[in-house]
Amino acid sequence: MFTTFTAGDAGNWQILRMAPVTGDGLAPASHLAVAPAAALPAASAASWPLVGVASHVRYVERAEKTALVAVQAGLSRPDATLAALIPIRKSAAWWELTQEERRRIFEDKSQHIAASMKYLPAIARQLYHSRDLGQPFDFLTWFEFAPAHAQTFEDLVGMLRATEEWSYVEREVDVRVRRT
Amino acid sequence: MFTTFTAGDAGNWQILRMAPVTGDGLAPASHLAVAPAAALPAASAASWPLVGVASHVRYVERAEKTALVAVQAGLSRPDATLAALIPIRKSAAWWELTQEERRRIFEDKSQHIAASMKYLPAIARQLYHSRDLGQPFDFLTWFEFAPAHAQTFEDLVGMLRATEEWSYVEREVDVRVRRT
Repeated sequence: MFTTFTAGDAGNWQILRMAPVTGDGLAPASHLAVAPAAALPAASAASWPLVGVASHVRYVERAEKTALVAVQAGLSRPDATLAALIPIRKSAAWWELTQEERRRIFEDKSQHIAASMKYLPAIARQLYHSRDLGQPFDFLTWFEFAPAHAQTFEDLVGMLRATEEWSYVEREVDVRVRRT
Repeated sequence: MFTTFTAGDAGNWQILRMAPVTGDGLAPASHLAVAPAAALPAASAASWPLVGVASHVRYVERAEKTALVAVQAGLSRPDATLAALIPIRKSAAWWELTQEERRRIFEDKSQHIAASMKYLPAIARQLYHSRDLGQPFDFLTWFEFAPAHAQTFEDLVGMLRATEEWSYVEREVDVRVRRT
């Protein structure tokens, strides 16, 4: 029920590049293994493996959920040979907000859902929650796309990083991979 | 960062009684040990230990949070020698709702926060989240109170069980303990 992202010498994804965006980076490696896990693995000094859980939705409202379900693509499409793992941690100030305050920043001010919609279904997304697992990041965001949509993905990431929501991100690493 | 509730022959709380309210019960024991844990312990066949994490608030709005902080009591008050551990699991139908639909049932229809307020500070509460940890319950609710407030606690539990929110509870066990 957990999903583990383990960097090392082998794995189903080859690491193309890995760079810190905000705060500390992660230990370099050549491959990334993405796999389900029944138990929490021990964290290493280098903060790998990263672990998350695909949980229920926290911010989308009913009409948004219906629209997202209609438009979004699933993982593991054969032509989606590129992917990005972008772990993020938000600040204490974010977590001290209440749910409705976070939702206001997430959608009313940052348009996270509405503005993301046009990038779907080219970019398949899956959010994994890590914060309550005692992990170094709050979320592991995972995106899969075909090489033809690489620029679409850059546009999506650029748009998200420019939002008010992203001003609460205090650590972010960008890991780009290709299916082996 | 996790909190474990382990039933066995020893522990800082003596089990006075334990009964299923909805669905399966839990294996009987004489004592309950409540302790912090850095890692997730392996679950036994009997579903003990139960593990949860004290996380950020999910439903309360700012005015409610302010009011709660002002009125609620902390854990470990010397005179709060009685406690209750009430693990609950909500149905798939609950988790398929969106955040704002859950909030509507939680507060607008069930008045979980507003109606609970008058029982505070007599009853100290702590909610532990378990669902994303792969646990058999979604939440471990923990209450501490003085013997003089035992009836107040029964009133609180009875009120919560009568709410629309509680119609989504598909498993619930009621464990009553006394500090050793």
